[in-house]
Amino acid sequence: MHVIPPPLEQLIEELTKLPGIGKKTATRLALYILRRPAAEAGSLAEALSVLHDSIQLCSTCFAFSEHDPCDICSDPRRDHRVICVIEGPGDLLAIEKTSSFHGIYHILHGVLSPMEGIGPEELKVRELLKRITSGDVEEVLIATNLTVPGEATASFLIDNLQRYPVKISRLACGISMGMDIKYADHHTLARAITGRQNFS
Amino acid sequence: MHVIPPPLEQLIEELTKLPGIGKKTATRLALYILRRPAAEAGSLAEALSVLHDSIQLCSTCFAFSEHDPCDICSDPRRDHRVICVIEGPGDLLAIEKTSSFHGIYHILHGVLSPMEGIGPEELKVRELLKRITSGDVEEVLIATNLTVPGEATASFLIDNLQRYPVKISRLACGISMGMDIKYADHHTLARAITGRQNFS
Repeated sequence: MHVIPPPLEQLIEELTKLPGIGKKTATRLALYILRRPAAEAGSLAEALSVLHDSIQLCSTCFAFSEHDPCDICSDPRRDHRVICVIEGPGDLLAIEKTSSFHGIYHILHGVLSPMEGIGPEELKVRELLKRITSGDVEEVLIATNLTVPGEATASFLIDNLQRYPVKISRLACGISMGMDIKYADHHTLARAITGRQNFS
Repeated sequence: MHVIPPPLEQLIEELTKLPGIGKKTATRLALYILRRPAAEAGSLAEALSVLHDSIQLCSTCFAFSEHDPCDICSDPRRDHRVICVIEGPGDLLAIEKTSSFHGIYHILHGVLSPMEGIGPEELKVRELLKRITSGDVEEVLIATNLTVPGEATASFLIDNLQRYPVKISRLACGISMGMDIKYADHHTLARAITGRQNFS
């Protein structure tokens, strides 16, 4: 006897494969989809079906794009002398949203993680070095996450980039906007002090 | 210029239509799907496509099912004299998981909500009364949620069921298992006291 009809069970199972979606959330989503018109499930299915066929990696910066090179790499208004190195495509979207960066990107597609067997060869590090030697790159802005693996990756990149005639920069680490200093964690506060900016 | 390729944007938009999924979560999910093999997106798309075609409402209890009547309604081992009235299909799954209920169900598909224009006609109330008059129902267990609309629906049902020769029961309201009494909210504690069970 099936309390959950098999097609519904199947959808729940597929949904639980997504990150951060457990059995309960998957069940809630699947029941919601079932209660809504079939056309809505259809358009989600359609969007999923065409996704991989229509998107590829940009061979220059390794961003997901419909074109190669991607829209950012092929945009003459962007400053091609500044490369921002990030861990993944989500970071690109977050940085683009700020409208504060006008250079181009390089997506590593991961971070160094010896425990999981991810070394520089598994990331797009060689491709980054190739871009730096072949092009007229003046600055590399390292924007890996401020996590332990992100920091380790940043240190590794800084070590390796120092033999090239490029400026190496990192995102500022400090107190968040709107944050009360007394509630900042002490690691961040320490970095905000050592990395203090001069205005004189 | 597209920072987010349109097919990815389309998937993000479809995902944000799901309940509890905002733009950030949708983006994270869509990027995850894009990084995984196309076959995984394919099986999710497939599960979505077949969902509505293969599932219908049971014409007796209004549960989602592949068959009509559903597996529960057509199971001779279930006690057809006891009908449990619930708001939605998710409640059925939760109750079935307990293995503590051996009767059959009646799904209202909603709760009374005058503000949203949902009256008894919008719910499966007439169908419930019809089941009670036509069959050999002995007990109606009202298991609507312990929320304001759920309670209002329960009161409405109790009022309407009293003219039928059936026993009317409700789920016990009280302290959760493992809960410390001093941390229980006082409404629940009050209900646990007034609804206290006799063991003598």
